Amino acid sequence: MTGQTLDVDAERLRETFESYAGIGATGDGGLHRLALSEADRAARDRFVSDLRALGLSVRVDELGNVFGRRAGRDAEAAPVLIGSHLDSQPYGGRYDGQLGVLVALETLRRFEELGVETDRPVEIVDWTNEEGSRFQPSMMGSGVYAGAHDAEAMLARTDRDGVSVGEALGRIDYDGDAPCEPPEAGVHAFLELHVEQGPTLDDRGLSVGVVDGVYGLAWLRAVVEGEADHAGPTPMHARRDALAAATDAVGEIQRLPNRLSADAVATVGEFRVEPDSINVVPGRATFTVDLRSEDDGVVDRGIERTRAELDAACERHGVEYELERLSRHRPVAFAARVRAAADRAVDATGVPATHLVSGAGHDAQHLQSVTDAGMLFVPSVDGRTHAEAEFTEWEDCLAGARAFANATLDLATAD
Amino acid sequence: MTGQTLDVDAERLRETFESYAGIGATGDGGLHRLALSEADRAARDRFVSDLRALGLSVRVDELGNVFGRRAGRDAEAAPVLIGSHLDSQPYGGRYDGQLGVLVALETLRRFEELGVETDRPVEIVDWTNEEGSRFQPSMMGSGVYAGAHDAEAMLARTDRDGVSVGEALGRIDYDGDAPCEPPEAGVHAFLELHVEQGPTLDDRGLSVGVVDGVYGLAWLRAVVEGEADHAGPTPMHARRDALAAATDAVGEIQRLPNRLSADAVATVGEFRVEPDSINVVPGRATFTVDLRSEDDGVVDRGIERTRAELDAACERHGVEYELERLSRHRPVAFAARVRAAADRAVDATGVPATHLVSGAGHDAQHLQSVTDAGMLFVPSVDGRTHAEAEFTEWEDCLAGARAFANATLDLATAD
Repeated sequence: MTGQTLDVDAERLRETFESYAGIGATGDGGLHRLALSEADRAARDRFVSDLRALGLSVRVDELGNVFGRRAGRDAEAAPVLIGSHLDSQPYGGRYDGQLGVLVALETLRRFEELGVETDRPVEIVDWTNEEGSRFQPSMMGSGVYAGAHDAEAMLARTDRDGVSVGEALGRIDYDGDAPCEPPEAGVHAFLELHVEQGPTLDDRGLSVGVVDGVYGLAWLRAVVEGEADHAGPTPMHARRDALAAATDAVGEIQRLPNRLSADAVATVGEFRVEPDSINVVPGRATFTVDLRSEDDGVVDRGIERTRAELDAACERHGVEYELERLSRHRPVAFAARVRAAADRAVDATGVPATHLVSGAGHDAQHLQSVTDAGMLFVPSVDGRTHAEAEFTEWEDCLAGARAFANATLDLATAD
Repeated sequence: MTGQTLDVDAERLRETFESYAGIGATGDGGLHRLALSEADRAARDRFVSDLRALGLSVRVDELGNVFGRRAGRDAEAAPVLIGSHLDSQPYGGRYDGQLGVLVALETLRRFEELGVETDRPVEIVDWTNEEGSRFQPSMMGSGVYAGAHDAEAMLARTDRDGVSVGEALGRIDYDGDAPCEPPEAGVHAFLELHVEQGPTLDDRGLSVGVVDGVYGLAWLRAVVEGEADHAGPTPMHARRDALAAATDAVGEIQRLPNRLSADAVATVGEFRVEPDSINVVPGRATFTVDLRSEDDGVVDRGIERTRAELDAACERHGVEYELERLSRHRPVAFAARVRAAADRAVDATGVPATHLVSGAGHDAQHLQSVTDAGMLFVPSVDGRTHAEAEFTEWEDCLAGARAFANATLDLATAD
């Protein structure tokens, strides 16, 4: 720290936020700005123009990640990287992602108008396709940057209309030339502010959370195969009803967290039957399972128990199943150095805060494999997210912005 | 009866069946001949041509039902009506419907070549849109004929592409001029042969079933409304998971028949969640319930219990629901006179047979409100139906055809 506490320009941050929130705004106060859509292009254009107005040197990489670099006293030093994402969920909220980018922008604007010289360069970033709604996987831009995914493979991923990421980048003129990778000097630290997307801070009446890490996660898909039969003349005992087995298993899977740990969550989010006809006994049922915990052993046990519940339910109903592992993320612990900088900033700005672990995935978790990463959360009222009703009190946004600006200054100061 | 037992021409029936089964055949031995499709037109054209070759007088009514009339000694007498439907389920079986029409055709061919003179006229019919896959409701042509539905309203029903029944009839040139109603003299009796679509006859090794009636039926749709939340950061206790409540209720609903009666069946055939996303707690779940029993009081109790299970499950999970009644058919008892004619024919032909009640709906149930109706079933191997694998042993088809021809002759003989 410089010994001096930075404030932010509340009015400017608010105006900027409202203005960006108008790009792809929905009628109900939300945001519909899918990755690489025309709305995303408009938000990116505005972002690039704001970076240039600040005198930053802008570069766009091959995945469309947009960076703006502010020089430090040591022009060759590894930069501090700050930012989040400008894309949204379909009919999602206006805080998710965008708030973190604009708080980072306000931080650099404040540095500029106060003439703050940092020891290290500071780079601001808008990561491409964090949401994963249009193109899978989520956290795509940061994942390629961190080496978790191959750039060519990601550029070839297509949306439902068969448009690839590469084509979509070209259409909106964000198919950049820079390689998608950390600079040669490395990255000194990454810091991201985001809405919590859960109820903890709101329940406890706190403004800021210092994030210690991200839950481990498993995504599974179960396909239960029975036999389709006419709903009328087929007696109950003669059925091999895929839905009956699936609902039995799902009921038990949803009760797993009670038996695993206090922090575990289990969600069945997708659920489909075939032929999906009112008078036909379902021959196939397909559903997904999302298991998360701070403790990776709990996630492993959750997978085992899911299989055991499917075994039992399918045995009872005389049907078969297959269980596919779609995704598996080990828990991430953020760097002590970044958490400490966040703690100092929280203390210096007098913000009511706590530590917590993120149940949701974030770009920062990829960055932890490249550098020391960390996050600050601000509350989500009632935990609502990925919906137009997503809301954060403005005072909490400001408290988070103050802590973020000070933590960034701290990290950019050589020690 | 004439005292003499009719046989059918097994070779001709088989050739005719194979030939019709080629119109809209699927690669896996099934039939894809949706109502009023080009394949349905081709089957109808073939049917009309076969009726004309027999010298029958053909008429097409405003719903596209196709009739062929063979005169009786008393030209003014109320005719005996026989037949079924030529449309199929999507990728359905080749026996469902078609077998009944072609057995009726073979019956009239046999009458013709033997010079059989019946006291009453005999009319053969192909009912429009029995399946209800493309246009709802099912049993449409027979329903209008019986006065259960309004012709204009049915002609205005549309498929998924917005094409109305009236337009579709025009496109295949089956928008007939005749009013869709019974003749002025009335109908003396209606007889239909159909595959059982359940396992009873196959399980018991019998060739023919004389159908005593059709189950009562209720179709319900439940919409469970909770709240969509992020699957990661939303603790289990803070969720209002629509799917969790729906699966609890569905599990209980599927167990209802055990508590209601030996013959009752309960099926959840459609099941959907929204937003149907792997990392989002479902905010809405929609499912249908199909309840059937011979005893209408059991169906009523099933509806009550469905509501009670939804009350309990939704209360437990803190969500709301609405339950809509989509359809309700009272049980139908077929006429003693037609059942007796069927029994005599079964006895005369020495076919191993039993009596049973149909769990599936059939055109004959509408006809029971117009005249004395009845049905003969032949087995469905393993009860399979509405699938390409639907199968009936050819010997059983023949046994059914013999019984059908003799029962038709019996009914067409004045007594």
